[in-house]
Parts: sequence; structure tokens; C-alpha cells
Amino acid sequence: MSAYTELEARFRRLGAVEEAIAVLHWDAAAMMPAGGAAARAEQLATLRGIAHQLLAAAEITDLLAAADTEANALGPWQRANLREMRRRWRHGAAVPGDLVEALSRAKSQSEAVWRTARPADDFAMALPGLERVLDLTREVAAAKSEAFGTSPYEALLDQYEPGGSIALIDRLFDEISGFLPGLLDAALARQAARPALPAPHGPFPVTLQRRAALRLMERIGFDFAHGRLDESAHPFCGGVSDDVRLTTRYDEADFAMALMGTLHETGHALYKRGLPAEWRLQPVGAARGMAMHESQSLFLEMQVCRSRAFARFAAPLLRGIFGGVGEAWDADALYRRQIRVDPGPIRVDADEITYPAHVILRYRLERAMLAGDLLPRDLPGAWTEGLKRLIGVVPESDREGCLQDIHWYDGAWGYFPTYTLGALIAAQLFAAARHALPDLAEQIGRGEFTPLFEWLRTHVHGKGSLLSTADLVLDATGMPLGTAAFEAHLRQRYLE
Amino acid sequence: MSAYTELEARFRRLGAVEEAIAVLHWDAAAMMPAGGAAARAEQLATLRGIAHQLLAAAEITDLLAAADTEANALGPWQRANLREMRRRWRHGAAVPGDLVEALSRAKSQSEAVWRTARPADDFAMALPGLERVLDLTREVAAAKSEAFGTSPYEALLDQYEPGGSIALIDRLFDEISGFLPGLLDAALARQAARPALPAPHGPFPVTLQRRAALRLMERIGFDFAHGRLDESAHPFCGGVSDDVRLTTRYDEADFAMALMGTLHETGHALYKRGLPAEWRLQPVGAARGMAMHESQSLFLEMQVCRSRAFARFAAPLLRGIFGGVGEAWDADALYRRQIRVDPGPIRVDADEITYPAHVILRYRLERAMLAGDLLPRDLPGAWTEGLKRLIGVVPESDREGCLQDIHWYDGAWGYFPTYTLGALIAAQLFAAARHALPDLAEQIGRGEFTPLFEWLRTHVHGKGSLLSTADLVLDATGMPLGTAAFEAHLRQRYLE
Repeated sequence: MSAYTELEARFRRLGAVEEAIAVLHWDAAAMMPAGGAAARAEQLATLRGIAHQLLAAAEITDLLAAADTEANALGPWQRANLREMRRRWRHGAAVPGDLVEALSRAKSQSEAVWRTARPADDFAMALPGLERVLDLTREVAAAKSEAFGTSPYEALLDQYEPGGSIALIDRLFDEISGFLPGLLDAALARQAARPALPAPHGPFPVTLQRRAALRLMERIGFDFAHGRLDESAHPFCGGVSDDVRLTTRYDEADFAMALMGTLHETGHALYKRGLPAEWRLQPVGAARGMAMHESQSLFLEMQVCRSRAFARFAAPLLRGIFGGVGEAWDADALYRRQIRVDPGPIRVDADEITYPAHVILRYRLERAMLAGDLLPRDLPGAWTEGLKRLIGVVPESDREGCLQDIHWYDGAWGYFPTYTLGALIAAQLFAAARHALPDLAEQIGRGEFTPLFEWLRTHVHGKGSLLSTADLVLDATGMPLGTAAFEAHLRQRYLE
Repeated sequence: MSAYTELEARFRRLGAVEEAIAVLHWDAAAMMPAGGAAARAEQLATLRGIAHQLLAAAEITDLLAAADTEANALGPWQRANLREMRRRWRHGAAVPGDLVEALSRAKSQSEAVWRTARPADDFAMALPGLERVLDLTREVAAAKSEAFGTSPYEALLDQYEPGGSIALIDRLFDEISGFLPGLLDAALARQAARPALPAPHGPFPVTLQRRAALRLMERIGFDFAHGRLDESAHPFCGGVSDDVRLTTRYDEADFAMALMGTLHETGHALYKRGLPAEWRLQPVGAARGMAMHESQSLFLEMQVCRSRAFARFAAPLLRGIFGGVGEAWDADALYRRQIRVDPGPIRVDADEITYPAHVILRYRLERAMLAGDLLPRDLPGAWTEGLKRLIGVVPESDREGCLQDIHWYDGAWGYFPTYTLGALIAAQLFAAARHALPDLAEQIGRGEFTPLFEWLRTHVHGKGSLLSTADLVLDATGMPLGTAAFEAHLRQRYLE
């Protein structure tokens, strides 16, 4: 067996363990009773420790060196696989297994406490877990920073966005910060000048909301033989490529929240499902990173499903399911509600224009906490002050402030920027898709999504991790990653 | 660290991996879409391979030898833990890891095909998978037989019923075969002489059936902070001690099936939950074996919930939930329906008297297949002939015959005898409990289950694997395992 072949076998094992972890993680969020948390934390810590052992094994180092000498005999996918293996190995070898398991336990425990602390609006309850997770995360960041020769923040960012850099993020975020305030003011003024929007009257029973969500998922192309839709406190797309587990949450007063949330997660799901089947369980077969992942959810939610064309398709379907009567159920009213701008304290409820401000806030705060410039116990004040400065909104409680997101409590530090990178990529991809499919808006209006997703499968999904994020964006759109398409999209949608 | 302490740490890891496997196994039966089967098979095979590596590691052999020299310093639970570790290790070390993974894959694939073949009544479809599982199981049996110095069948049986022997099973099954036919004839004659039983009129909506099941589980003492109830094709009790996952299946024409099935699984669940919390993830903290496990489900279902006293408690509760009217909802009618004797082809629907015949049939057939005396392709004929000889029933299809049970397709060979061993233990335990709690029937009639389950926790659940099955039964009941209590129970219930 060649060194490369041996590496494929070893990474296949690692991939299967990581898939098991993904299913257990979904179960913890969507199915597990509260009393199972401690046992699950132990299961996950053990599996993560085993995954780390598989990755950091001394043989991997030798095999990677030996495989390099075979590189000429490998095809482009295999060479890319080898590159991704090395990237994965660098992350594994940089930290000791004890730290991996300790962080896993701390994450599980902290996240379980957060589940209670958030509805109770009790930051003090969640603080010790947050501090513990931060301490261990800083240890990981320091170890990886030293091994990679990058900054500690970039060492964490690289786990989610391979090759991501502070310099690029700062530049893009500065550009966004440059045009957003003016754009927000103009959009709000324009919105205020329009007649009031008719709203449909609830309640909207969960069974009907679920039916609508399933119907739309099916029309868009979700394959229920390879996935399911459930509920969780923090909606997400989990599971594995051949068995995708989406979650949403329902509010009987507002069907749009669960619906748009489901469509967002469906974007993630179609990416996951569309990854190259022949490279399952291999590093090169994985999603390119969380920015690209988020671009796929935002592509579907923001670019497709909040469009005027989609409203034409969805309005009669929703009217039928909910038995809606009156102009509130017309496509125009539906569309205008979907693009309503309304600065508020909650990120996941934010409109497209204010959303980047939420991300910028978190990016600044997490960098400050990781650098030791901000202590977790001072987070509530810094949060309130920061949000007020960015969009003039003051959260009324920690529940609406620094307790709202699961990420830091669950150990996802260096993750937040990928949301806004994803929004930029989504706008750029949609502009390219519109160019390639001149009939696109009409297709969406008729509920025909096949050509669009074939385009995405060719240019994004089916590429897995063959290219870097930068090259993938360049190849698919003909342009380097930037803010122009995003800004043009916002101006077109909100100001024209 | 002492060798024993090091073993505890290693077995704790193994235990956590096995818990992860248990959750993934539950998910595959209760949640997973069909398209996830191949990925899940790979996840389970990999985890089982890893569990095997942990168990068969060379260091374990050395540590077990070293721990023996420390035995004087250990307490009784630790010594029992060491004994159980060695038992687990013997099973692991006897077979190569490749075989463990190959069998795991074959089981997952065969079981997935069986899920389609059973409703389609297509034995030919399921046959190749069955043959593959049997071939690999025979390899395992041969390897363990050689290592243990027992017969191949006993080597498999020992996986489910530690220390179980063909000699004991044959003796007990012969005794049962001696008194059952006469008892069955007498019970049927007595039943025929009674007036017809009033039956409630359906349909009984699944939501109400679920509500009734949850209410009864709660009254009996199931803790929903540590478990849940879902649906699956083959009901079972899965998950882990701190997070028990029960499943049932519903028939809208007959609420008793799901209800009694749920109560049966609740018996398993309470055993799992009652295992000694301080020995979680250690071999001595595990259930004593599948005969003892089945004794707990049958204790609750057969001894408690099909009693006249339980019908007094449950009848008004069910009448209320289903809005039942008329004498069909009276306690007496409920009781008489619950103990109706009706020889039929399906094991899980069988009454208490004919059930052992189903088990004896499977015991004979699996021994013949493992010995090579019966080929899987000849199973349908042998099944039909055997059932006819035992209880005079001829299944109308393979679906009602050799396709009905998941066990062989899913690799559980040597498991079936534990059902009837469990029935014997249940009867013996209930007789002992009645002796210890003279007020027991009145308590059950009032829906008071706390004293009964305290007794079980003291004498069975809390003992984990401290004692052998034989000693556990002897300690709890004052008698060696036998058929007398079971026969007395049947005579009392069906002939008096």
C-alpha cells in the first residue's frame, strides 16, 4: 500500500468517528432529555479524544512525509486531499489530547448550563462555564499560534475558515462599516414613507407551519430519504452528508420565523448533500469552510427566498396551507414583510442590512476577550455599549444581549466572521448565477429550482475542498471576494 | 497509579464509546432516514472496531495480570469489576478486529434490508444478508469456543447471558415443554366456557395512545428528565442508563399493543436507570445479562401490568383518556382481555403460555443453523414445520414466520433463550416480592409502585453485575433458578 493509500484509510476512520460525533451533537440539541447531558459530555469527550489520537498519531507524520514523495503519481483531487490532510494534522498535532478532551467536557457542560441560563436571563449562572471555555480556548489558540506562526485569533479562525486572515476580515468589515450606516438610514426613510404593511392574523399552528416548511423544502429539492427536520432551541443544520439533520423553532404568532429559518438551514443542507459523493469521509470531500457554508444558507434564504420572485411562488402555497384570506397573503405583502428593515437586539432575527453590525460586534468582543483585554464578567456592559454605538439599539436584558448566542458557551470562538463573509460570497455567487441563467427570476417565480442548484452543484457543492475559499469564489464568480456585489444587492433591494 | 486504577480509566473510555454506539443504534431504529443506512453502518463499524482495539490492547492483558496481585487491597465491588473486566477482555481478545468490523457492517446492511423485506414478505431479499451474518457469526463462535473451551453456541450465549449453559437451558426448556401443552389445553377450554369478552370500539388515535402510555410510565416511576418514548418498527429499550430511549409502535385498532409494549420496555428502562450510579461506565455497573434484563420487562408487563390489581388501577385512567363508554372499559373486561390465550404465529403478540414455545422454536433453529445442520435457505420450511408441531399454528407467510424477528438479521445469535429465562426469573422474583410486601396487590390496585420498585432496586437493579445471574436469583428469591414459580403463576392466573 502506498503512503497516500494508507492515509486515505486512516482518514476514513477519522471521518467516520467525526460523523458519529456530528450525529451525537445533533441528538444532544434536538432529542436528548436534560438529564442525559453529563453522560453525553463524557461520550463526546471520549470520541473527540479518540479522533485526536487518530489525527495526531506519530505514523501520520511519517506517512505525510512519505506521501509527498508520491505526489507526482497522484491526481488533482488526491493532491488536494493530501493538502487537506496536512491541514487537519497540523491542527491535531498542535494540541495535546488532554486539552482536547478537557475543552470538549467544558463545552458540553457550559452549553448545558447556557440552555437554562438564557431563558432565565441569568448571565451569572453561565459565567463560570464561559470563563472555563475561554481559558481552555486560549490555551488551544496559543498552542496553535506557536505551531502555525499566525496570530492566536487566526489560529482559531483557521478551524472554521481555512486560510482566513484578520487583514482580509478587517478590510472587508471596514468597507461594510463605510456604506452600511448611510444605506440603513436611507432604507428606513424609504420604508417609513410607504403605506403600512398588512400582516396576517395568527395564531399559526405548529402543525401547519411544519407542513409549509416541509412542502417548501421538498419543492426546493431536499431529499427526505437523506435527512429530516426537527426542533431545537438554537436552529442548525447538523448530521452528515448522507443523513442531514435540520432543526428549526416555531412561534405560533409568526410563521415567517420558522419558515425562513428552515430555508436558511436548507441552504446548508443542500451544500452538505451536494458534496462530492466519491470523496465521503476524506478531508477533500468536506465543505470548504464555514464562510462557504454560510454563503449557501444565505444564498437560499437571502438571495432566493427573500426575493420578489420567490414571494410570487410561495404566496399562494402559504395561503392554501394556512387558509389565509385578504391582501396580507398577497405576494407583494409577503415580499415586503420579508425585506422589512428593523434594527433590533437579536442577531438571528436581524434584517440583512443590520446583520453585519451584529457580527462586527461579536468579532470585536471575541478578539478582545481572547486577547485578555475584556474579561467575560465585563461582557454584558461591553455588549450593550457596542451595539448601541453600531446600530443605536440597547438590549433590554442579557437574554437579548450576550446570552443570546450559543457560540462562545459551546466553544465556537473565531467563528462569527464567517457569517458576514458568507453574506458577501452569497451575493457574489447569486450575481454570477443570474448571469449564467438569464431566466432565473422567472424560474424562481414558478418554483423551479433545478437549474439553479445544478449551477451551484457544478461551481460550489461538487468541489468540496478541492480549492481554497479564495480560488473557489474566483472560479465561480470571476471576481475575488469583495463587498461590491453585496452592496449592489442591498442598494437594489432596499433603495430601488 | 495501580494496575486496577489504570484498568478503570481504560474501561471508562470503552464504556463511553459503547454508550455512543448505543445512542447511534437507537437513532438508526427510531430517527434515521433510510438513506442514512450506509453512512451509519460505517460509523458503527468504526466505533465497534475502536471499542475492540481498546478491549484487546496488549496492555490490558498485562494490567489484568498485575491487578490480580492487588486483589487483596480491593473491595468486593472492585473485585467483581475486575472479574467482569476479564470476562469482557476474553470476548475481545478471542476475535480479530477485522472480523468485528466486518460483522458490524454485515449486521447493519442485513438489518437495513430486513426492514424492507419484512413488510414486503420477501425472504429471498433478506437471505443473502442473513447468510453473510451467519457465516461471520460462526467464525466468531468458533474463535470464542476455542478460546473459552465451551461449545460454539455457549460462546455466543455468553455474550448475552454470562455463564449461560446449554445444559441448564435444555433442562429448563424440557420442564416447560412438559407442563405447557396440558396447561394450554386447560386454559383454552376454560376460556371457551366463559361468556364472550366485550371489546372497546376503535379507532384509538395515536395521540391518545401516546398520552396513555406516557401517563402510565410516569405513574410507574419513569423519569422523563432521563429518557424519552418514540416509535420504531421493532420496539426496544435503547440508549444509556442516564438517558434511556424507549420505543413502541401503534395500531389504531388496538391500544393494548402499544400500551403493553411500552410497559414491557419500561421494565427494561427502570432496570437500566436503577443500575448503581457510582459504577457507571464500568463493567460491574452494567446489567447482569439479558435474562435478568428480560426478567425486569416481564416482571412489569406480565407479573404487574397483566394482573387483576393493575386492571383496577388502569381501567378508569384509560376510560378517561379514550372517553370509553360501557362494560368493555371495566377493570374485569380489561383484565380478561390482557390474559387472553390465543395461539398465533407472532412471538411479540403471543400470550404468556404460548410464548415459551416461540422461544424454544428459535433456540432449536438457531442451534441447527450455527451447527450447519440447517441452511438459511431452508429456514422457512423448518420454521413452519416446527411451529406447527409445537403449538399447532401454521404461519401464512414468511412475514408471519421467519421474517418476523429482527434478531438473526441484526446478528443477535444465542439471544433468544434469554426471553424465557427472563420469564422464569420474573415469576420467581414476583413471588419473592409478594412475600416481602404482603400488601402488594392492594398497592398496585391503587397505582402505588414505589415500594415494589424499591424492593427491586435493593435486590436486583442496584446490584449491577456484582453477582452471577445464578447468585443474584438465589439471593433475591431464596431459591435457585427454576420453573416452579413460573408454572405456579400460570396455573394460578389461567386455571384458578
